Amino acid sequence: MKPVKVGLLGLGTVGTGVVRIVEGHQHDLMSQSGSPIEISKILVKDKSKARSIHVSEDKLTESAWDIIESPDVDVIVEVMGGIEQTKELMLAALDRGKHIVTANKDLMALHGPEILQKAAEKGCDVMYEASVAGGIPIIRTLIEGFSSDRITKIMGIVNGTTNYILTKMSQEGAAYDDVLKEAQQLGYAESDPTSDVEGFDAARKMTILATLGFHANIALSDVTAKGISKVSKEDIAYGKKLGYEVKLLGIAERQDEHISISVQPTMVKHSHPLAAVNGVFNAVYVYGEAVGETMFYGPGAGEMPTATSVVADLVAVVRNSNLGVNGRRGFVPYKEKKLKTDEQISSKNFILLHVEDKAGVLAQITQVFAQHEVSLESVLQHPNQSNPLAEIIIITHDANKASMNNVLKQFESMSAVHAIKSVYRVEG
Amino acid sequence: MKPVKVGLLGLGTVGTGVVRIVEGHQHDLMSQSGSPIEISKILVKDKSKARSIHVSEDKLTESAWDIIESPDVDVIVEVMGGIEQTKELMLAALDRGKHIVTANKDLMALHGPEILQKAAEKGCDVMYEASVAGGIPIIRTLIEGFSSDRITKIMGIVNGTTNYILTKMSQEGAAYDDVLKEAQQLGYAESDPTSDVEGFDAARKMTILATLGFHANIALSDVTAKGISKVSKEDIAYGKKLGYEVKLLGIAERQDEHISISVQPTMVKHSHPLAAVNGVFNAVYVYGEAVGETMFYGPGAGEMPTATSVVADLVAVVRNSNLGVNGRRGFVPYKEKKLKTDEQISSKNFILLHVEDKAGVLAQITQVFAQHEVSLESVLQHPNQSNPLAEIIIITHDANKASMNNVLKQFESMSAVHAIKSVYRVEG
Repeated sequence: MKPVKVGLLGLGTVGTGVVRIVEGHQHDLMSQSGSPIEISKILVKDKSKARSIHVSEDKLTESAWDIIESPDVDVIVEVMGGIEQTKELMLAALDRGKHIVTANKDLMALHGPEILQKAAEKGCDVMYEASVAGGIPIIRTLIEGFSSDRITKIMGIVNGTTNYILTKMSQEGAAYDDVLKEAQQLGYAESDPTSDVEGFDAARKMTILATLGFHANIALSDVTAKGISKVSKEDIAYGKKLGYEVKLLGIAERQDEHISISVQPTMVKHSHPLAAVNGVFNAVYVYGEAVGETMFYGPGAGEMPTATSVVADLVAVVRNSNLGVNGRRGFVPYKEKKLKTDEQISSKNFILLHVEDKAGVLAQITQVFAQHEVSLESVLQHPNQSNPLAEIIIITHDANKASMNNVLKQFESMSAVHAIKSVYRVEG
Repeated sequence: MKPVKVGLLGLGTVGTGVVRIVEGHQHDLMSQSGSPIEISKILVKDKSKARSIHVSEDKLTESAWDIIESPDVDVIVEVMGGIEQTKELMLAALDRGKHIVTANKDLMALHGPEILQKAAEKGCDVMYEASVAGGIPIIRTLIEGFSSDRITKIMGIVNGTTNYILTKMSQEGAAYDDVLKEAQQLGYAESDPTSDVEGFDAARKMTILATLGFHANIALSDVTAKGISKVSKEDIAYGKKLGYEVKLLGIAERQDEHISISVQPTMVKHSHPLAAVNGVFNAVYVYGEAVGETMFYGPGAGEMPTATSVVADLVAVVRNSNLGVNGRRGFVPYKEKKLKTDEQISSKNFILLHVEDKAGVLAQITQVFAQHEVSLESVLQHPNQSNPLAEIIIITHDANKASMNNVLKQFESMSAVHAIKSVYRVEG
């Protein structure tokens, strides 16, 4: 049987894992896909570099176009990253009838609709399971597993770096800066950690998940993102005392066809399954009208987990080829996108205030909430030895974001309120 | 566009859920599957019975053959249960070119290979996502999501009734009999609970999961099953003290192509994600050579969760029909089944002994382990106020089952050992 020929763009961590699996599992992959799979060309930056795996030198090239234009390549596996230039290469590959498997969340979050549109026109597959939550097959789960249900909420711990940092801060009572430095030394965080710690990476993944879950073309600009760089060890300690863990959650919600998507550090109740997801692990919690609560847990990154998802996609492309249905099982968003206004976005909130420690202040504070029709679940006043101010922790009932913003604005103008130390969304 | 016509066998809990979803989500289902889906005939036991949903009376029939033989039915949805007679109906439906969606674990565990074989011959789909772990799409995950990996271990909490009972026993320190009675009153346990509490239901589900995960035709008789009816509140309390929860786990393992599958109450370490799966929830933990640890969590039963999986399968059948690939995406086991011997099955173990409280007994006990080359992780001797015997709790390192059986046999013949109170496998 004629082998399916793969052009591999990138031989970094994930690319190396892909070579290991394709070469190591030849027999299994053929049994499952129906054809032998052969990596025929590999794009590298430097052909002469030493590598941890053996690859025959005549497969290597330093030119992506060598691979895109080769008639000897059926499927492109893109694990090199990049956005604009990579997009051009992918569109050119589709123009030449090549299928695509990619692990590139940035590409799919920013240019997914354009690429998928071109693929449909050309009868090609584009698969991207590895772009979100590395080893967890969450994309097929949303497309196939929940095709019959109406998903109303997706909450994801989809960034391993920030989950590692928050877990360490929680378990060791350590400060953000110290843990970040340690994570950088261990290779869990980049030397410029902005994309991870400010929530931008998670926002890209949530763009992809929300598009699939809500069947509408969500744009990255629809996602509001707030990172963890302002999370203090005090916040974590207070949260813990009240029964919460701080997690960087991506939250996509739908109510009556209106959608909101955000990424922010969130107080997650200990009894919620996401609260126990620790270290570099990822998890995606999906709530469906019919199915109720589900959660999918696994490694979010790493050579072999991510390569597993890439090669599973490759198997699916080969199965489709053998059935003659490439480009015909794609996901097509069929709903109009309607975003929630701030009046429609609602959640519980955790607020930590520093206020003057004198009679009547608490009454003033609670009066502000009442005035904006935000009702309170609990109020905790805490003496603070180190300064003459009182600390007040408030947990609200569900309140809309517009009202909450008005409450906070009013606090800013009150002389009795010295600082709004922190505000978190609360889940669970 | 011509609607796909469904013959629904059974209008109990799950059947009612299927009708609700198919009728309530018409537009969404059509957008995703490409065709309208219509339930054209429904098998009921008694046409005159009052129901919680409205169904037009001319769709109802009391004869399964009415549906199987109807040229007006394209897909059979079987949610009535039963084994031998149901198998005959399913084979007859396949002979007539009808596709099958079933939630019937008993049918698939006992007759899966025969039914799938016939389906392949006839170019028909047989889908059974709802047969294991109700709302969790674990079957597609094993077939598609992990197609590139080598799965070495599947551990499942796949029976909600027993997980409810064990959770209650753990959280309230209650005795088995009392919690079982309560579960029966709440409808979580059958009046004859044997199939659930003795592990037979879980064994059937593990037969299906192991077949998919290991690509070999596993038979129900390959699964050893032990239930929870002998689990005492003392066992649970001791486990907790040492950092374990007792869970009824189905465990399917593979090592060098040798497989073992069992169901038994197991001490699961608190840090393991399965330890936190409580109440009637189900979870399946999958370990793959490449991906590492993953876990899939959700409702294991119930009208709407199970119906979600049934209708997702129905959508998949309709998609396949529209692509003309029915019966060609099926799962085909391609590996020879080789079962592990007792010498090859290995695990850590928890053993609780009642022994004579006198000098030298502990030395005798540990001597027995040494003699059979079972090394020990910890030994805890516990004074017991209520009787003149000492309690000894031993946790072994990994030990093979044959050696463990020899150890236990030798204890039985020792006068110093008054009782082997309990033996559990240990995981995590």
